[in-house]
Order: sequence, then C-alpha cells, then structure tokens
Amino acid sequence: MSPGAYVIALDVGGTSMKAGLVGPRGEILRTDRRPTPREDGPLRVIEAIRTFIDDLAETGRVHADDQGPAGIGLAVPGLVTADTAVYAANIGWKDVAATGFTSLDAPIRLGHDVRTAGLAERVLGAGRAESDFLFLPIGTGIAGACIVHGEPYGGSAGWGGEIGHIPVFPDGERCACGQIGCLETYASAASVARRYAERLSRSASLRPYTAAVPSPTAGAPRAEDVVALAMRGDPHASAVWDQALEALSLALASYTLLLDPSSIVIGGGLAEAGPALFEPLAERLQARLAFRDAPPLRRAALGVHTGMLGAALLGWQAAGLPDAGSTWTLDVLRSPSVP
Amino acid sequence: MSPGAYVIALDVGGTSMKAGLVGPRGEILRTDRRPTPREDGPLRVIEAIRTFIDDLAETGRVHADDQGPAGIGLAVPGLVTADTAVYAANIGWKDVAATGFTSLDAPIRLGHDVRTAGLAERVLGAGRAESDFLFLPIGTGIAGACIVHGEPYGGSAGWGGEIGHIPVFPDGERCACGQIGCLETYASAASVARRYAERLSRSASLRPYTAAVPSPTAGAPRAEDVVALAMRGDPHASAVWDQALEALSLALASYTLLLDPSSIVIGGGLAEAGPALFEPLAERLQARLAFRDAPPLRRAALGVHTGMLGAALLGWQAAGLPDAGSTWTLDVLRSPSVP
Repeated sequence: MSPGAYVIALDVGGTSMKAGLVGPRGEILRTDRRPTPREDGPLRVIEAIRTFIDDLAETGRVHADDQGPAGIGLAVPGLVTADTAVYAANIGWKDVAATGFTSLDAPIRLGHDVRTAGLAERVLGAGRAESDFLFLPIGTGIAGACIVHGEPYGGSAGWGGEIGHIPVFPDGERCACGQIGCLETYASAASVARRYAERLSRSASLRPYTAAVPSPTAGAPRAEDVVALAMRGDPHASAVWDQALEALSLALASYTLLLDPSSIVIGGGLAEAGPALFEPLAERLQARLAFRDAPPLRRAALGVHTGMLGAALLGWQAAGLPDAGSTWTLDVLRSPSVP
Repeated sequence: MSPGAYVIALDVGGTSMKAGLVGPRGEILRTDRRPTPREDGPLRVIEAIRTFIDDLAETGRVHADDQGPAGIGLAVPGLVTADTAVYAANIGWKDVAATGFTSLDAPIRLGHDVRTAGLAERVLGAGRAESDFLFLPIGTGIAGACIVHGEPYGGSAGWGGEIGHIPVFPDGERCACGQIGCLETYASAASVARRYAERLSRSASLRPYTAAVPSPTAGAPRAEDVVALAMRGDPHASAVWDQALEALSLALASYTLLLDPSSIVIGGGLAEAGPALFEPLAERLQARLAFRDAPPLRRAALGVHTGMLGAALLGWQAAGLPDAGSTWTLDVLRSPSVP
C-alpha cells in the first residue's frame, strides 16, 4: 500500500449523501456531506454522486501524492448487488452499473445502505465480537441488517431486512406502505412524533405539559421530545411511547425466536433516547419470551458515520483488501478528525 | 465405496423413532420405526437408540457383506451440534456425545431434527433448486428450518427456527409455552383440533354437522376433520380454520419481510389439507404484503421420511461424502421400497 493510500466512501442511503476518505488503517482523512437531489430524478442523483466522488478525489490528492483512490465504496438503497444498483423506489433508478457512478479509473463496490451500515457495526462497532446479530437503526423509518455467519444477509433476492414492515398489531393502523400494523408505523422516530401530534390534536381537553423540554405546542414535536415528555409522565406521550415499545418488543421477539441473535444492536436517532428506550424494551422483550432468554440489547457504536464507514470497508474490499477493518482500532466517536 | 455400502439414518425428532438404511446413491434399503420411550427418561431413550442402531446394523449385514455401516446420521430435538446432543427439554438429556448413541465403530453425525428435515428438502426435495427458503412442517407443533445460503441456519447458538412461537396475535390466547398469541397455539394440527373441540363444547346450540367426514361427536376431532368441515361451511370449523390461516399468513409475512425466501415449503400433517390450506394461505399472505410479492408456497416433497433422509445425508457426510444427495434421483413418494 503506497503511503497516503485511501478509498472514497459514500453513503447515499439517507436524505443526504455522507462521504469520507478513509485510509488502510481506518484513518478518517476527511468527511463531507451534500444533499441528495432525489426530487430532481435518478439521473441528477447519479450525476451528483459522480461529481461528489470527483471532488473527493481532488481533495484526496494531497494525501496520496497525486494518486487517485485505491477503491470506491458506495452504499445505496433498494435492491443492489456488488456491481449493480438494480432498483430503488425512492430514487427511481434501474440497473445502474457500479462504474456508472464514477468517472475515475478505480475499482468500485456497491452495497445496500442498511446492510453496509450493519457491516460497519459488525467489523468495527458494537458487533465486533459477534457473528450473528441484528443491527436495527431506528430513524425516520426502520429497517434492519440481519448479520448471519458474520455477513449481512439480504435473503434470496436482496429484499430481506424489512423488519420495519412486519405486522406487529395485525388489526392496527395502516402504514404508509399500505400494510396493516407495521412496526414502523408505531415505532420509528417519525411515527412517534406523528402519533403524539395526532393524539394532541384529537384531545379536546389538552393542557400542554410545561417542563424543561421543548413545548410540543411550540412547533412540530420531535421523537426525543415525546420520549422526554413520557419520562415525565405526560399521558399522551406515555401512551405513544408505550405502544412504540410494545411494537418493538413484539418485532424483536419474533426476530429472536426465528434467528436466535447473540445480541440486538440498536442505532439511529431513537437510540439517543438511551435508558428510556433500552431499559423498558429489554424488560418487555423478555416478557414476550417464555422459554428462552432475550438477547442483550446494545447501542450501536459508530453513530452518524456508520454507513460511510461500511462504504469504506466496501471500498477497501474493491481495492483488494477483503479483510479491511479487522485490525482497525477505530474510535470514531472520539476521533478528532470527525466533525 | 464398497458394494452394498450403506449408512444408518435415525430420526428421533417425533413421537416415534424413524430409521432407514440408505445407500450411497440414495437407495432406501430398509425403513423401520419404534416408539421413543420418553416417559422412561433420557437414559432409556439413549439405550433405545443404541439398541435400534445395533439392530439396524444387523439387518444391514446382508447388504454390505458383513461390513458395518459407513456412517450414522442421527436427528435429535433441542440444542445440538454435529458431535453433541447438548440439551432437549422434551427428552431430558444434557451433553450426550454423539459416540454415546452407538456401540458401533462408525463415524456418526448429529443434527437438529427440524433442520435435518429441512436439509433433506433442500438437497432432495421441494427446495432442490433453491438456496434460501423456509421449510415449515406443521404437525402437532410448529417449528421451521431457515435455509440460508443453502444450509439450515440455527442462529447464534442453535435456538433459531422457532416460528411456531412468534407472537402473531399479541393480545391473543396463552400458548402452552407460556407466551401470548403464538402461531402454534392457533395453527398447529393439534391446536386446530383442540380449538374446534373447545368451540363445540362452549356452544350450547350445537347441532352436529352430518356429512361424509368423521363426525366430530364420534370422538376427538382431528385437524383434517376440522378442515373438511370448514370446507363444507360448518361455522365453528370455519372460524377455527380462518384464524389458523390468519395466524399463518401473519407469521409468513414476517418471515418473508425479514428473510426474503424464494419459497416457503410446507410439510407435516397439515400440508395434507392441500388446496384447502395452500390456496387461501397464498391469498392471505399476499394480502398482508403491500410492496412486494409473496414467495410461492410449495408442498414438501419427502413426506414421513423427511427426517430419516436428512439423517442419511448426515450419515454420508460423516462417512466422508460431504456432497451426498446432490446426484440422488430419489423419488421417495413413489419408491416401492418405502412402506
């Protein structure tokens, strides 16, 4: 490996594109972020990715003595193989070859966004010592990465991991996806906020709870506000949070009984709730299991950079280092180079 | 392979022990069956297995010119590795070495009962062309074998596949396992029969439906009677069967969304219901899925010998043929040698 070698890592999974330049020992040389122009159509998204990668390579020249990146890793939503972005409903592309995402002459590898984040937690994060677990980021939506025999598993065709849409309350509310009673419609951060707001607006006898948290009447409540209110006994927030926890415990009981994970690693915005999430959820999960212990719930370790770091692993794999990450002593959360 | 070589295959998963002698091209030379003396304790069960294997080897002498078996495969319930029966609640043993099950000097390999049956369907049966599917036998109880990358997958410690105990109706009936609303308590053959009998006994206005099926008042109704009555419009049977189908569709929707199987292979006694099971279940499963197609439901191919055939594959693996079965042109259901 030449001095200053690096890969370009790009995560296009969320509402913005998160990028990094990462060295062969996990050195995060740079991070960056740009909006994803989804509303402008798939061609514009592909163009934005190409431009972003070009610009990142330009900034990489100072590290690599004018050499380009050793590899490129790209995490994308939808159906994806290592060399083709097959389909993504929320972007609109179909069958884009990996090489279509860059003008650079560097090996490139694609991965599914959530499973690439799961790969990062597996290799570098909370699942480092485990080969069979669930990585569950809970944010605007909910999807999971089933880690099986040490690798993210996408099922027969790559559509697996949709734990956010398993039916936890079979006679429950209709989800935005069209199904009934999905986990996501009760327990995503967006749903917790939405359901609290709906309850408030239905409640004629509303007396806003005043406390040292943002008042829900001062604007759209966020999930963290709802959790904080629930902790303080607000009845509407408590009801919403209670149902979110119950939905999560049902989904995790099903996952545990089917796939016997050694742990469940929870990330995403809702994991910021900390003990308010983890303690009651662990109790309820065990209460749903009679003849076996619940697996421990762990907090994801890598935070906002999880997807980018997974993409860096893909980039180093593309560059010919299949075991990249196994010796990295990364401590992203404390790394001074991470903004 | 010497002429007449064979393995001893024994499935201890069900209420009786099912055995076979199987040649290297899948020739079923003999099948046999004995009761499992579970009520007499684990030592008696182990002794019964040893005696059964000895006796099978005795009958094998005519095939193998007085040579013993090339290998032994043994399917057992509970927690199991290839060389140790770690634990089984319904038998009571703990940490029995594979060699403890036989006095013969032949290599022996153990497997989990349901996953060994799943292996047989994968290699020889309905899943022959597929590497990622669910094998779901529905009998007295319900457990599944998750086939992942071509192999049965038991999870981090071997406790996976418990689809019969995922919570499909979270506020539903208590299962014998202690949990609430398990699939098994609604949809196993035993539960369908039990729930119908309970409904009848609760119904004051009972007028037994008289038809060309065994009258449920003439003895304990069996699941197949309930299905037949439901097909003829009996309201109690229809209600019970309807809920069994709904429970199954919910569990299979969850499995599909999590693990994206290419098909679901249903076996066990309830699969005998044929179209009365498969047609409405396929419809309901699709109705529970909004943004993806349901995987096809297939009927298991190997019938009552599934576990034994899986054990035969384990036996040949123990004998040094890891790819045993891949060239077998077995047609068990039509084989004249199968009683």
